[in-house]
Amino acid sequence: MKLDDVKKLQQKKYREEFGHFLVEGEHLVLELQKAAIKIPSLKNSELFVTEQYQAWQSDFKTHVITEKQMAQISDTKTPQGILAVVPFLPSSSSPTKTERAIYLYEVQDPGNLGTILRTLAWFGNFRLLLSPNSVDPYNPKVVRSSMGAIFHVAMELDVPLDALKNRFKKIACLDMQGKPLSDASLKDFDCYLFGNEARGVPHEYLSDLHAQAFTIHGCGAIESLNLASAVNICVYELTR
Amino acid sequence: MKLDDVKKLQQKKYREEFGHFLVEGEHLVLELQKAAIKIPSLKNSELFVTEQYQAWQSDFKTHVITEKQMAQISDTKTPQGILAVVPFLPSSSSPTKTERAIYLYEVQDPGNLGTILRTLAWFGNFRLLLSPNSVDPYNPKVVRSSMGAIFHVAMELDVPLDALKNRFKKIACLDMQGKPLSDASLKDFDCYLFGNEARGVPHEYLSDLHAQAFTIHGCGAIESLNLASAVNICVYELTR
Repeated sequence: MKLDDVKKLQQKKYREEFGHFLVEGEHLVLELQKAAIKIPSLKNSELFVTEQYQAWQSDFKTHVITEKQMAQISDTKTPQGILAVVPFLPSSSSPTKTERAIYLYEVQDPGNLGTILRTLAWFGNFRLLLSPNSVDPYNPKVVRSSMGAIFHVAMELDVPLDALKNRFKKIACLDMQGKPLSDASLKDFDCYLFGNEARGVPHEYLSDLHAQAFTIHGCGAIESLNLASAVNICVYELTR
Repeated sequence: MKLDDVKKLQQKKYREEFGHFLVEGEHLVLELQKAAIKIPSLKNSELFVTEQYQAWQSDFKTHVITEKQMAQISDTKTPQGILAVVPFLPSSSSPTKTERAIYLYEVQDPGNLGTILRTLAWFGNFRLLLSPNSVDPYNPKVVRSSMGAIFHVAMELDVPLDALKNRFKKIACLDMQGKPLSDASLKDFDCYLFGNEARGVPHEYLSDLHAQAFTIHGCGAIESLNLASAVNICVYELTR
């Protein structure tokens, strides 16, 4: 890919146009190389490196560029000197029987989504569904904070909330007024729904989905728990 | 405080020199006002607002400044127009009998520390101890991502790791090879130790502390869970 086009991949509209995203830094490129063993399409990634990385071992087509050029295509203030241009991950295979779905409604914070991907990859056997108007999982900040977990989680993008009804049998929702999470029935669902950081899920949708509410009870000192923390605790409780 | 000095509070050395930190944005200033009811020293905060906020209700000494001045003292790219200069929180009172200590060794990421503060404030009855060389909890990014939780958690800064031995009876440590977190004995400790994001806790220290290891088991796809997620799951398990 031409350097001018690589630079554009920092923006969502060009990522969608080219079907590629950026993976930057030693750790993430190593994770990409491990993932390429399992996901054949990732072998078509291209690598851009500065002189210090010219001996880097990979099967990817590699371009040596100047530090100035790297600064132009990099998303970070102090580029590490190694960056890959990677094709979008394959649209995820059909769910397995034991897999549970985590549905995020309009999640906005890239760090939250990255952390959630890390949690789902850590525990395994979860599928991530994102609503329309969610932060793009191929955003460089999401990729970075996922620490490579993005290569290990089956993802589906732009899944409308009202599509859940026909697809899942029993939907649970994390909400402010529900059963405690430690209730044994938490495990009886096939989809777990989490709302936007500030606004949650609109209540009119919830009744339409016949979603069962669960709550992580706190002591009342502050308004809410961080979204990624809530997903994290729910996923832990499900695998406990 | 003079505007030139306020601007300096973005840097740790000046925060320490002046004993003040920045609290920016509507939500955080509201949380500060609520906290000032319980913590008398917070009443000495000063407020800096642009014209749009000049009718803002508070008991703080208030200065109306221009948008240009606000942009200079603000830590964010698009300032909200309201920012408080706040005295350091009182060094925390002596621990209560039911309180548990969470000790973080050289935590580096501001977002992680903010999220951890939020988790501790949410569940309540935890005290936060930070080692030397940890990220400063008065860093504007920590304050922001704590969403006001920083006003609700008893904190102690610069607590050396080797001071834990004399102070606590039984120390637990989250590590890669230990008992599962759901083990009933997790509750029998008075201090819970978490290592730095990349390096953990140096092993020579752990044996000296006779710390008992606990592990959050994963499926093996990725190297590690996010630090804030690990603290979060541990705290949830303790209050479960």
